[in-house]
Amino acid sequence: MSKLLMFEKPVGMRDTLPHIYETKRKLKEAAEQEMRSWGYRFIETPALEYYETVGDASAILDRQLFKLLDQEGNTLVLRPDMTAPIARVAAAKLLKERVPLRLAYSASVYRAQQREGGRAAEFEQIGVEMIGDHTLSADAEVIALLVSVMKKAGLEKFQISLGHIRFIDELFQQILGTEERSEQLRRFLYEKNYVGYRDHVKNLPLSSIDKKRLLQFLDLSGGIGTLKEAVNLIEGSAGSEALDELKTLYKRLEEYNVDQYVTFDLPLVSHMSYYTGLVFEVYAEGVGAPVGNGGRYDDLLEKFGRPAGATGFGLRVDFLLEALEQLEDEEGIHCILFSNERRVEAINEAQRRRAAGECVLLQDVAGVQDVDKFTESCKHVTFFVGKSSSEGEV
Amino acid sequence: MSKLLMFEKPVGMRDTLPHIYETKRKLKEAAEQEMRSWGYRFIETPALEYYETVGDASAILDRQLFKLLDQEGNTLVLRPDMTAPIARVAAAKLLKERVPLRLAYSASVYRAQQREGGRAAEFEQIGVEMIGDHTLSADAEVIALLVSVMKKAGLEKFQISLGHIRFIDELFQQILGTEERSEQLRRFLYEKNYVGYRDHVKNLPLSSIDKKRLLQFLDLSGGIGTLKEAVNLIEGSAGSEALDELKTLYKRLEEYNVDQYVTFDLPLVSHMSYYTGLVFEVYAEGVGAPVGNGGRYDDLLEKFGRPAGATGFGLRVDFLLEALEQLEDEEGIHCILFSNERRVEAINEAQRRRAAGECVLLQDVAGVQDVDKFTESCKHVTFFVGKSSSEGEV
Repeated sequence: MSKLLMFEKPVGMRDTLPHIYETKRKLKEAAEQEMRSWGYRFIETPALEYYETVGDASAILDRQLFKLLDQEGNTLVLRPDMTAPIARVAAAKLLKERVPLRLAYSASVYRAQQREGGRAAEFEQIGVEMIGDHTLSADAEVIALLVSVMKKAGLEKFQISLGHIRFIDELFQQILGTEERSEQLRRFLYEKNYVGYRDHVKNLPLSSIDKKRLLQFLDLSGGIGTLKEAVNLIEGSAGSEALDELKTLYKRLEEYNVDQYVTFDLPLVSHMSYYTGLVFEVYAEGVGAPVGNGGRYDDLLEKFGRPAGATGFGLRVDFLLEALEQLEDEEGIHCILFSNERRVEAINEAQRRRAAGECVLLQDVAGVQDVDKFTESCKHVTFFVGKSSSEGEV
Repeated sequence: MSKLLMFEKPVGMRDTLPHIYETKRKLKEAAEQEMRSWGYRFIETPALEYYETVGDASAILDRQLFKLLDQEGNTLVLRPDMTAPIARVAAAKLLKERVPLRLAYSASVYRAQQREGGRAAEFEQIGVEMIGDHTLSADAEVIALLVSVMKKAGLEKFQISLGHIRFIDELFQQILGTEERSEQLRRFLYEKNYVGYRDHVKNLPLSSIDKKRLLQFLDLSGGIGTLKEAVNLIEGSAGSEALDELKTLYKRLEEYNVDQYVTFDLPLVSHMSYYTGLVFEVYAEGVGAPVGNGGRYDDLLEKFGRPAGATGFGLRVDFLLEALEQLEDEEGIHCILFSNERRVEAINEAQRRRAAGECVLLQDVAGVQDVDKFTESCKHVTFFVGKSSSEGEV
């Protein structure tokens, strides 16, 4: 192989070395255990799917998909998210079972990146999908579970921003009149380009009152009072129904005692185009991007031939790790070094300690080039070397 | 999307539904815990690698690789095994640390399949690599660990077949004279096509004594006595050194008290061409293919610029599951159903039980279409429905 590529990995691909691996493992185990204890059942789907099946149903930009051809000429994609594959499985098999379905996943997803962006092209998501329940109780549960998962994962300083797609759609429709114009403004929100949004609004052929409404809308974020301000911007029933939903949801979250983690952010447009109602993003202190997001997607299952309401969230494991204030301490290991003569003694001692729950590394000194360096990072070292007394401890 | 592909997955790709997922999770957790307790540290590598880096170093057939192009025109592969990526990481980073290195992995690997074969194109491997230790102690440790992992995973009925690549190479070289002829015969062994081997030998331009040696070789499998028979087939030192290694190794395995799981199978040629000494395969009762394999590969690290002896094994998680006599019982879940009036009571009851370690599913009755079906598979059901007495248990 060429020297140049010998140690290289493709753009956006990373290795996870032991120390980080252990921290991540513990974080994931805690999160998964919490999901299970709320009655969510884990499933797995393949890394590769037909483009026609889930590539298309997912809302990830086409140029971010890793595509390849199979031996029969079909286009395959590395899954860009887990929601579409889970919808496929639910529709094909699980919706015959106990409905509403509570499903969970912990899996890598894949999105092609530009070299200069420095973004991960493979990252792990852990999340849940509740399928077949149209009630606000379902939305409240997934947010309450989200809070609980964050805490079990060791995070305390985080905030969940809530918005509602139907409020935005209704407001834009009332003021702008066309879906095309609404789409343009939604894109600014999706990109969180608020400067661009303001400039764009200023140049629209609208009355100054309507322009003002669109600009005031941008400031609709904060506590429960935000919903009252929002009522003043909108006419008719569809928009205020969305606000009522948010209000009821907040009440439910109070009942779960998780309202202190929640604020409103009405201009929130999450990147998945399949959300149809409630949307939310999770922010953790010290991380510049949302560590997770979610919402209600009532139209996706229909694409798989089984209309069903659904809601859920996904968290990015790499961002959660970033938010953890410190890594796990590397666990101290007990090293037993032996020479040939005392091999059996050493094996027995190692087995005895392992059976008692200790981590024990057993090493033939003949296989070590630098004993000092080898034992440097061990918590305890026991030598069974050379003919000696019955006690090998040094 | 087309109706045809709506629920389809690419050839060889599978979903893992909740029941199997839980069984697999417990199996993997037990195996991983055992590896950690022997001092092995887990790492992860990306799903995609440069073809030039690991596609080439791996011994998987080129037509079994999933290949794609990145945005800069480089060829990427979905990793077909974990040994080559781990060698890359060890050579690039970890060989500066505590050597010998003890590394472990639990990851999916990818091999393109024909539709008619019915084989998995994505499957999980769990295994270890010990890098930088040339001693037989290292080989004995990985086999002893393998036995321990199998037992912790819940398997008792399994057998490990041991062979030695240098014995085969030496025998073939002595009798056949050329590498090309040796290669032909090795291919029959690799394919376990013993009929083909016998036919091929019969037609070789060799003395009847040499033909007999090649045919007798095929029968060299069984207990420790096999090694004595093998001595008679070979001349010179290289072949008998290989046999001495196997003999010493067996003694070491007796010291670990795992010799009862080991037999010899001298015609064993494992599919990875990078093995250089000891090779082994693991067979479990009830599974038609090896559930795992391993051996010594002293030349691979050199390809990454850091010569170092290495030995290890990998187990196929799907085959281990097949070998398990029964799946985990589906854990009984406690369902709490509530109506709006008694929501808070229900939430509190669920939280109380979860805090006590129970799995509790909390469900708004308004979200359930068929309550009888929903509660059918629950172990316990508690209703908090309608205005009622203070006790919701029914």
